[in-house]
Amino acid sequence: MPVEIERKFLVDKTLWGKLEKPAGNLFRQGYLHADPEKTIRVRVTDTTGFITIKGATSGTSRLEYEYEIPKKEAEELLDNFAENGLTKFRYFMPFQGKTWEVDEFLAENEGLMIAEIELHSEDETFEKPAWIGAEVTGQKKYYNSQLSVNPYKNW
Amino acid sequence: MPVEIERKFLVDKTLWGKLEKPAGNLFRQGYLHADPEKTIRVRVTDTTGFITIKGATSGTSRLEYEYEIPKKEAEELLDNFAENGLTKFRYFMPFQGKTWEVDEFLAENEGLMIAEIELHSEDETFEKPAWIGAEVTGQKKYYNSQLSVNPYKNW
Repeated sequence: MPVEIERKFLVDKTLWGKLEKPAGNLFRQGYLHADPEKTIRVRVTDTTGFITIKGATSGTSRLEYEYEIPKKEAEELLDNFAENGLTKFRYFMPFQGKTWEVDEFLAENEGLMIAEIELHSEDETFEKPAWIGAEVTGQKKYYNSQLSVNPYKNW
Repeated sequence: MPVEIERKFLVDKTLWGKLEKPAGNLFRQGYLHADPEKTIRVRVTDTTGFITIKGATSGTSRLEYEYEIPKKEAEELLDNFAENGLTKFRYFMPFQGKTWEVDEFLAENEGLMIAEIELHSEDETFEKPAWIGAEVTGQKKYYNSQLSVNPYKNW
């Protein structure tokens, strides 16, 4: 079964601001269903759409099923069926053989940045760039599904 | 936006039993989310899988988005994420230029048969085969999502 293993970290915004980096991709996403055992997310990127079903997190792992769908239909699903959502720029940052996914949240979550790294096993080791801050893996308030209902500006 | 327009009828089981018909396709399905405004269904057929998002029914119409997914993943989604489900044989029955979809329910819904016809508009006219019985369009207890929680044997 497809399992996502990932760790999450805050980002040092001062160091991040000094980096040369590629343009971010604008992501808009919302949830058709969200509870601790299951989230059903629809995401719209610059070019396409996705529907993603994720299970409960156990440590750093969770079941994840993702399907690409037409962008226009993903937009309609968000408009018709998602109660909460968020927007963010995503940056893909290669470092020492891994790619970090860095999210710069917008709107109600402006000011928050989170970096994620996907691993092949829970005990895989990796190098951290200088701009990686404190680890927040497993902290529920940093889940995107949580940020869509209790955004950063309310913390 | 993709809208499904459909009408539902009971089936005269005596007349149905005398028909020559193709073999039925075994469908297993369950719900990742079900409320009056939105259902998220996963279906496994003989050959493949589907994830389908449907909106609230208004008259004979509802929004419907359907995506084909690998059969094995559909089975895993049902096993991991669906709380209720049902199984049925589906028959595709051509008649006067339209195709009726006839469901013969199994297990907890054994004894129930429903025929559906998809229309291009709410007022489209069509011919009914002799084995079509009373119309049940819009009757909630006949929704598949309802049959998965309150099956026919409990009525």
